[in-house]
Amino acid sequence: MDLSLPEFLAHAIALEHEAAERYLELADMMESYRNDEVAATFRDMVRYSRLHHDSIVARAQGLKLPQLRSWQYRWRNPPETGGEEAFDPALTTYEALRYARENEFRAQAFYSQLATDASEAEVRRLAADFAAEETEHVQALDDWLARTPRPSTPWRVDPQHEA
Amino acid sequence: MDLSLPEFLAHAIALEHEAAERYLELADMMESYRNDEVAATFRDMVRYSRLHHDSIVARAQGLKLPQLRSWQYRWRNPPETGGEEAFDPALTTYEALRYARENEFRAQAFYSQLATDASEAEVRRLAADFAAEETEHVQALDDWLARTPRPSTPWRVDPQHEA
Repeated sequence: MDLSLPEFLAHAIALEHEAAERYLELADMMESYRNDEVAATFRDMVRYSRLHHDSIVARAQGLKLPQLRSWQYRWRNPPETGGEEAFDPALTTYEALRYARENEFRAQAFYSQLATDASEAEVRRLAADFAAEETEHVQALDDWLARTPRPSTPWRVDPQHEA
Repeated sequence: MDLSLPEFLAHAIALEHEAAERYLELADMMESYRNDEVAATFRDMVRYSRLHHDSIVARAQGLKLPQLRSWQYRWRNPPETGGEEAFDPALTTYEALRYARENEFRAQAFYSQLATDASEAEVRRLAADFAAEETEHVQALDDWLARTPRPSTPWRVDPQHEA
């Protein structure tokens, strides 16, 4: 995979925006469960994503960025745990953490790949930076997952969601 | 699955909004490929989705609708055809049609299930109506798929995307 600097920045901006939106959603959900600790973690993630987003927008100043398609930056949906039901009403805390973890891992894999593959040195440098940041997010979520009881219904096995 | 009328309308409004956004994206993509026929079909879908959206919003007037989570209405991402790559740059026409088809099928399954399961008669009636409409969209997309050459790279087998 290779991306030019404007292509790379467009992806990074969209990824951080999407992450902020989804973490906000997860934080609200955790708050409705009265799980204030996990809610606070997700709110921290909202803040980091927004700060990162704004700094990348600043970096992109003066460049013309391409328009992306939704599937190039959107988070994957969580797998459906309910079997028959097309639209799950809610996630358990464990599922919410795992959902976030898998999307962070996907972003981390994207940046890591560009950190080695990109032909522009500036893209490789930024991608390595961003990959390191995503790695920290993945680790933070792994720490939470280790401390969170698994739900009784197992998370459906889905190759798309396997790290 | 059972939903109250406000819950049902909230899903339907979100589904139609999402469909319009995604069809617009697909239409733009087809236009960039100079595939004007398929682009025109997707633009028709945008128009139908918007009309349907507006009529459901009108039906919901005066009701307080719940807020939904993104995974309760968003289209699934297309499976990744590129293997290693986390973010596909583009879809072939065939993949775009199949992507739309699978998301329409998912909406159709959602409405069909509610048409039988819902405890409120008005929800069952509306759901049956909407399921019939989605079935037409699925058929229109199947007609296009039958006329469109498959890409040389096979669409990755993914249980989440099997009808």
